[in-house]
Amino acid sequence: MSEKIAHKNASELLALVSSRRDFLRKTAITAIVGGTAVACGVPDSHAQTTKANGADNSGGTMAPNPAPVSAAAAADAMDKMHEAGIKAFPAKTAGKGNQLLAHRLENGVKIFEVTAKKIQWETAPGQMVEAWAYNEQVPGPQIRVREGDRVRLVVKNELAESTAVHFHGVELPNDQDGVPFITQKPIKPGETFTYEFTAPNPGSHMYHSHHNSATQVGLGLLGAFIIEPKNPAPIENADIDYVLVLNDGMHGYTFNGKSFPATEPIVAKLGQKLRIRYMNEGMMIHPMHLHGMHMTVIAKDGWLQPAPWKCDTLNIAPGERWDVIVNCNNPGTWAFHCHILPHAESEHGMFGMVTALVVK
Amino acid sequence: MSEKIAHKNASELLALVSSRRDFLRKTAITAIVGGTAVACGVPDSHAQTTKANGADNSGGTMAPNPAPVSAAAAADAMDKMHEAGIKAFPAKTAGKGNQLLAHRLENGVKIFEVTAKKIQWETAPGQMVEAWAYNEQVPGPQIRVREGDRVRLVVKNELAESTAVHFHGVELPNDQDGVPFITQKPIKPGETFTYEFTAPNPGSHMYHSHHNSATQVGLGLLGAFIIEPKNPAPIENADIDYVLVLNDGMHGYTFNGKSFPATEPIVAKLGQKLRIRYMNEGMMIHPMHLHGMHMTVIAKDGWLQPAPWKCDTLNIAPGERWDVIVNCNNPGTWAFHCHILPHAESEHGMFGMVTALVVK
Amino acid sequence: MSEKIAHKNASELLALVSSRRDFLRKTAITAIVGGTAVACGVPDSHAQTTKANGADNSGGTMAPNPAPVSAAAAADAMDKMHEAGIKAFPAKTAGKGNQLLAHRLENGVKIFEVTAKKIQWETAPGQMVEAWAYNEQVPGPQIRVREGDRVRLVVKNELAESTAVHFHGVELPNDQDGVPFITQKPIKPGETFTYEFTAPNPGSHMYHSHHNSATQVGLGLLGAFIIEPKNPAPIENADIDYVLVLNDGMHGYTFNGKSFPATEPIVAKLGQKLRIRYMNEGMMIHPMHLHGMHMTVIAKDGWLQPAPWKCDTLNIAPGERWDVIVNCNNPGTWAFHCHILPHAESEHGMFGMVTALVVK
Repeated sequence: MSEKIAHKNASELLALVSSRRDFLRKTAITAIVGGTAVACGVPDSHAQTTKANGADNSGGTMAPNPAPVSAAAAADAMDKMHEAGIKAFPAKTAGKGNQLLAHRLENGVKIFEVTAKKIQWETAPGQMVEAWAYNEQVPGPQIRVREGDRVRLVVKNELAESTAVHFHGVELPNDQDGVPFITQKPIKPGETFTYEFTAPNPGSHMYHSHHNSATQVGLGLLGAFIIEPKNPAPIENADIDYVLVLNDGMHGYTFNGKSFPATEPIVAKLGQKLRIRYMNEGMMIHPMHLHGMHMTVIAKDGWLQPAPWKCDTLNIAPGERWDVIVNCNNPGTWAFHCHILPHAESEHGMFGMVTALVVK
Repeated sequence: MSEKIAHKNASELLALVSSRRDFLRKTAITAIVGGTAVACGVPDSHAQTTKANGADNSGGTMAPNPAPVSAAAAADAMDKMHEAGIKAFPAKTAGKGNQLLAHRLENGVKIFEVTAKKIQWETAPGQMVEAWAYNEQVPGPQIRVREGDRVRLVVKNELAESTAVHFHGVELPNDQDGVPFITQKPIKPGETFTYEFTAPNPGSHMYHSHHNSATQVGLGLLGAFIIEPKNPAPIENADIDYVLVLNDGMHGYTFNGKSFPATEPIVAKLGQKLRIRYMNEGMMIHPMHLHGMHMTVIAKDGWLQPAPWKCDTLNIAPGERWDVIVNCNNPGTWAFHCHILPHAESEHGMFGMVTALVVK
Repeated sequence: MSEKIAHKNASELLALVSSRRDFLRKTAITAIVGGTAVACGVPDSHAQTTKANGADNSGGTMAPNPAPVSAAAAADAMDKMHEAGIKAFPAKTAGKGNQLLAHRLENGVKIFEVTAKKIQWETAPGQMVEAWAYNEQVPGPQIRVREGDRVRLVVKNELAESTAVHFHGVELPNDQDGVPFITQKPIKPGETFTYEFTAPNPGSHMYHSHHNSATQVGLGLLGAFIIEPKNPAPIENADIDYVLVLNDGMHGYTFNGKSFPATEPIVAKLGQKLRIRYMNEGMMIHPMHLHGMHMTVIAKDGWLQPAPWKCDTLNIAPGERWDVIVNCNNPGTWAFHCHILPHAESEHGMFGMVTALVVK
């Protein structure tokens, strides 16, 4: 039996990966209850491993075998699942969120358009979830303007319920703040609403629904809204400017709408300066841990810190944005993940909030 | 059917609000399990909405109708619930916590008296909970003294179990620290105990039970204890000094003992400086998000930060106090809430940790 | 009945303590689900107290008595449980974690050896749990080297599954980073693997498993890895250097692998400077609250903060390390605990994440 597992052929490995996908699906469901259920599962790890092997046997090419798996074979089987997950990275999935949104210019106004509608979204290979999305992306398209720009956002609501857009962190006139029944009427299904303002305080901000928001933001109505400063501080200059939206709602544990191994690696050349703009759109903290190099924290919620400070694990709470600089001076492929371990790894391997920084 | 809902009359709206109250009641219960159950409920949002409409139908004036509600009507019904909640704000409830406690002066000693006893407390309209309270207030009355004052606190225990008072953050002689069997005997039911000390390190502190504290603090035995400095720093000067106690225990998600729409708005005049003293007496983090204006963080646990720093979302952990200054320079009514969205909004509308900053 | 409880003899008190141990056992199990269940138990507090008394009666020397316990007697019974817990502190248990690991020197290389294997670990008196441990310690032995030292760590895997060691916070060459299938092959059961590097960035770091890590770290494969700086800053100098590893996984809420009353008090002489190196190896935040004196925060993840700052409650997130200095200028025995109260106290008394700072 151990022999057989040790020499698994390709179709067997595929079956293992399938059972891993089942696990990912299950994880996405349990993630809804705040990670609790994921943690609950841990004591059952061996039971689950056994079951995974059982499923493997029946679905694969090996004859059913009721004899117990040896410890070495169980360790090998677990390792193969872990390896398969990592070798699959970065896995292809349909759809990519957080893509830069193009605008058109009209009389000096930068005009952006987003449509909110229900879609199917693939968070990891074969892992389809219902999403409520702007322009069919989770996160919604990245909106980038410059301090002082005149900005217009046209929001079309193709959802079955009302919505509204709040510009989280942006100090707007009250009637552009996007809170139904306080600053505007809700945007009804089928309606279009237009926001317009002059981009004020620069920094890493967000736009998201502020109507039935626990559900609507949880399902994907969120995106990065970045206001570039007229006069950036020298410390802000970077070769790579990377937005990393964290989420933990109905879609499982995700980075920019994807779960490992479908997350996107960040690739830098040796010596480059990388700016990461963390944005937490979820319900839980995520202490982000980078291997191999430290992060220099330069801004909180778009505001420069009075003095930069260093860390390797940065705790990001819901609604917070943190900007950090990484001097990519250590070559290699570096794990980069949430350090609440049940958000990042199970006995089936890494999943959820894991990606890599690759320094070439 | 959609016609009927779209033109709901007053009694129907009332029924909607009632079903909303039922929801609030349910929320208060589920909040006990740490917000988890609230999050669990989210995927059922449509099921719950349907049920709410069903209850509405049977309790209201409309004939029972087994036909499905149209999407537009469902959206309208949800919006009306959201609107009703916001229009009810600030809703009247019995009891107000955190009221400034008067003292009497005897031989240069400021004497304060609190009695701990079990009461009924209204957190939101019609939402009654059992509370263990100081002077029948949740939070207990606000105690404010000046650095160097001689202070006496007389604590009478009218509860059915022992208690003790710890001055959280105040650097007292050991025998005034309020920890049963370490620094004192517990205050038995019916007994009175007197604390006396000279007010040391200034800042935003708290007093609360340190006996069976998960239960006693969870039920309301807590309050603000503020020591004003002899020599305040210029940055501390403010036109409005507002204490905001966060809680998430057996009383649901509350600000100063009340849940939205019964929370208190903060009202400022344009140009005023507002100081908010956050105090977390709960079991969970609460990242507080202010719309429209940023916050300048000036102190942590009563100690001035080495340099003030800015944010719009400030993560407050249990036991922490953070002091911030808001320059009220943006007129309007601004949402102000915990950004763990299931602590602030459901498909029935805003609830729990929501209030507003009104700048006139 | 109240008379009898008020004059409990030693055997009765012992029975009370036994029922308390049962509670601790139960707590350790419920802690697995992230503290949620502990919080759930709170509304049942009186039911549980009654049950505890019932168990006490049947197991002790008193005759069964179905009559209700008077309020005063119930308060006394609760107080006795609380007192018994505190009087038992510091309670003896088998095993001590975080002991300084000796090295041998070979050609200028400091060689450390750890063996990972499954053991039984006593977290509180009578509270045995399965642990996966380095050198039979939870946390694993403390490794301390000096910046620039050549370090070799020989890891022997005597577990039934593969493992690997990641040096969390240490900026190593990629092939020493300890992530299976990214930087190395997993260390199979029975195998030995050797890490070797020159100690780079100084500070309070950690070593732990990075394979099936939610389980392996949760079960105890973790320890402190401290790199002392060549040129320490004056603010770092301290009379006592104390490592405090926080955990909340399968072993319940622990400080250095033990739960109150088996936690270790920190003992200082009046006027001494105490450095505490907090390290969170768990899945939850733990806002650490010190009574009587404040903490001056000097470093985050081993990096000095740009300016020290003061607090009495410091929020430690998973994977974070924070270094603080306490000027031990207030004599007495001071409670020192996580301020998420259900991590530190139940109606049966203090448990879990509680210890004391004793200033003599």
